[in-house]
Amino acid sequence: MDSFDLIVVGSGPGGYVAAERAGALGKKVLLIEKEHFGGVCTNRGCIPTKSLLNSAKLYAHAQDGKQFGVQAEGVSFSLADAMAWKQETINTLRGGIEFLMKSNKVQVVFGEAQFLDAHHVQVANTTYEGSYLIIATGSSPFVPPIPGSKQSHVLTSDGILEIKDIPSSLVVIGGGVIGIEFASFFSMIGTKVTVLEMMSEILPMMDGEFAKLMRRELKGVDFHLGCKVEEITSDSVLYTDAKGEKKSIGASLVLMSVGRKPNTQGLEKLGLDIDRRGVVVNERMQTNLATVYAIGDVNGRSLLAHSASRMAEVAISNIFGSKAMRMRYQAIPWAVYGNPESAGCGITEAEAAKLGIPIKSQTVQMRSNGRFLAEHGKKGAGLVKVICHAHTGAIVGVHLLGPYSSEMIWGASALIEAQLRVQDVKEIVFPHPSVSELIKDACFQLDHTL
Amino acid sequence: MDSFDLIVVGSGPGGYVAAERAGALGKKVLLIEKEHFGGVCTNRGCIPTKSLLNSAKLYAHAQDGKQFGVQAEGVSFSLADAMAWKQETINTLRGGIEFLMKSNKVQVVFGEAQFLDAHHVQVANTTYEGSYLIIATGSSPFVPPIPGSKQSHVLTSDGILEIKDIPSSLVVIGGGVIGIEFASFFSMIGTKVTVLEMMSEILPMMDGEFAKLMRRELKGVDFHLGCKVEEITSDSVLYTDAKGEKKSIGASLVLMSVGRKPNTQGLEKLGLDIDRRGVVVNERMQTNLATVYAIGDVNGRSLLAHSASRMAEVAISNIFGSKAMRMRYQAIPWAVYGNPESAGCGITEAEAAKLGIPIKSQTVQMRSNGRFLAEHGKKGAGLVKVICHAHTGAIVGVHLLGPYSSEMIWGASALIEAQLRVQDVKEIVFPHPSVSELIKDACFQLDHTL
Repeated sequence: MDSFDLIVVGSGPGGYVAAERAGALGKKVLLIEKEHFGGVCTNRGCIPTKSLLNSAKLYAHAQDGKQFGVQAEGVSFSLADAMAWKQETINTLRGGIEFLMKSNKVQVVFGEAQFLDAHHVQVANTTYEGSYLIIATGSSPFVPPIPGSKQSHVLTSDGILEIKDIPSSLVVIGGGVIGIEFASFFSMIGTKVTVLEMMSEILPMMDGEFAKLMRRELKGVDFHLGCKVEEITSDSVLYTDAKGEKKSIGASLVLMSVGRKPNTQGLEKLGLDIDRRGVVVNERMQTNLATVYAIGDVNGRSLLAHSASRMAEVAISNIFGSKAMRMRYQAIPWAVYGNPESAGCGITEAEAAKLGIPIKSQTVQMRSNGRFLAEHGKKGAGLVKVICHAHTGAIVGVHLLGPYSSEMIWGASALIEAQLRVQDVKEIVFPHPSVSELIKDACFQLDHTL
Repeated sequence: MDSFDLIVVGSGPGGYVAAERAGALGKKVLLIEKEHFGGVCTNRGCIPTKSLLNSAKLYAHAQDGKQFGVQAEGVSFSLADAMAWKQETINTLRGGIEFLMKSNKVQVVFGEAQFLDAHHVQVANTTYEGSYLIIATGSSPFVPPIPGSKQSHVLTSDGILEIKDIPSSLVVIGGGVIGIEFASFFSMIGTKVTVLEMMSEILPMMDGEFAKLMRRELKGVDFHLGCKVEEITSDSVLYTDAKGEKKSIGASLVLMSVGRKPNTQGLEKLGLDIDRRGVVVNERMQTNLATVYAIGDVNGRSLLAHSASRMAEVAISNIFGSKAMRMRYQAIPWAVYGNPESAGCGITEAEAAKLGIPIKSQTVQMRSNGRFLAEHGKKGAGLVKVICHAHTGAIVGVHLLGPYSSEMIWGASALIEAQLRVQDVKEIVFPHPSVSELIKDACFQLDHTL
């Protein structure tokens, strides 16, 4: 029987990073993947959606260039070409992961893993032995038992990435990140889009003021909040609205994006503690079995690709490394890549109130910023909010809505991780002109002493 | 005679920020401006160039969208419309500064300032008295005495922002930031552009490897390095190339961008120490006269708008505030906003060698990054380099060439200011997918321990 220092099951941003890091430390590693390198992120999540959103943004810009001096006639969008580019991106990234595995001497087996016990995993007819086991099996779209949800025009985020034609109308059930990104994409390419959300606001991790502005800025999208979907027919979605009235919206396509469930099936023989969110882990990503770790969506602690990668590093640190790393959740950024973009890191005011943390906060309009004005004009909308601890001034939250948000936010993670205070950020020199300057502006408005 | 706590001369990003910050502290402030609010930055520098570059990038994207699924016919560029948008941006920002001055109760006088002594400044027939004086008079384009440089088709960065027609050919004399940004702009809108640079490489603050790639990526631009311009005729620029041969290039327009000189004229009566760079200041921005400060380009220490703003804060801190702030230059970012963008913060390898600082460095290709691939494909070019102190691991330089560079770089300033080490950056969670992740990737390649 082939024996390894580590067996990793699943090659998403949790699993492949774990395998890579362990391989880089000279460990003998087996990576088991049932389908394609990269998991949901590369094949059916982060990457394809960002590729399509980039295409749609270019399409929007090409139509919208006149005021900037760019005239274009006969602007049209080819879904087939956009899908082909998306697929090429996916293929390149799969190849990149394959290369990483080779260069870190990770052995790879394709096939469905059968978990036999804490040290044995079977694929097809072969059993592999591992001193340590990392479960990185991810999550799948959750499809609630709504009548009509099994029809062929009702898709999850998996299926909608494979469609051939631009739908005339789309109803998105669920206004989380996945729902909003697809709503933004399809509205940009000409589909009539409606989002039905059960809660009183979209994007639950987002500051309420920002979520409201996001809805307003997604100009082609109709939102119905606080409503319950009752049934999906061949051409409509029937729901009860916030006032309790029965309503109906025509839909040639329906996206079901109400949430994801951890892929815990097949783990039964291991005797793992599993709760509502997924496999229970401690801050080292260790399960109740000392040599079994669970990272990424399958533990349900933070359903983000970069959280999975970080969990991979924490797990490898604790298995083979310094054993000093712990998973911290207070400075994990998130981003929504629609048009406009949004990103955040740390807590919102609502969360601070719930946690009883005394805070001060300051919001600034992006239209007070030189670069934003140069690129979007004074009618453009965008917000930056900085939240600090009321007593210490330590930065505890940064929230962005507008261009470049997803590429600016990493600095906020650095501020929070380094426990910098408002006064410290005021001493950092931001490049001019850049949208990022607004973070400093907000800090000066929080405290104008020098 | 009207008497003030502070008189600020010049309303650029140094002067208006000084006035704003002092006003916010409740001081009685006079701001004197000879022309328009905002100085070179707003009116003839940072802002108009970024506005035009944004237009040109949109034009480039509209022509280049087919591979992403965006088809457009008859794409054309209207310089008049781009210039009109640019002017509207300028007007909006001037209005913004006017509003800031009002809301911070800063008194404003328009006119040329006559410096009488350390406490008195005259404008037209009125003399104003100030306890403190901040000189923020900026800089002007330097025009070297090259035969023919006074012809009407030879422009500086001031004049080129007012042209009405797209030139068929442009020779840019001087490959610094200003020269390269205009070269990028004009090549994107169809002008045949040649850059003549006296040194052996363009962009002296940039890592050599990056500068070389920048030249390669500015595909429509011809570069001639190590050459000396001898004469400008009505339709050509004559120069001696690096091999000593006489050459000539046709030019319907010539941009003179060899450098800037501090605006120190009129300061004679004050008896200030002035050196080759400008007004001599200490780390508090104080001149040899205890109550006179000089900030921004006029002191020549760092010719960047955001340096001027930071100097303003340091000066106000030392005049009216905690007196604790000092100007630090080691974490001031810079950005070049052409296509591609580039940005950096901290030292290069060449500078480290010159300073005798032992370093380790790591370069990663942007094409290894998911978002970059989704938006630019595997043939796209871009680089990220992280430099750390060889012994401590402290980050001492971050260099970026590629999309979003100008909006990502602020985080590098934060890392350097907070004296974080490679090991610390590896614990920061970067959002996926984002180009910014490459900074973390470089850190893991510098040190893969966990």
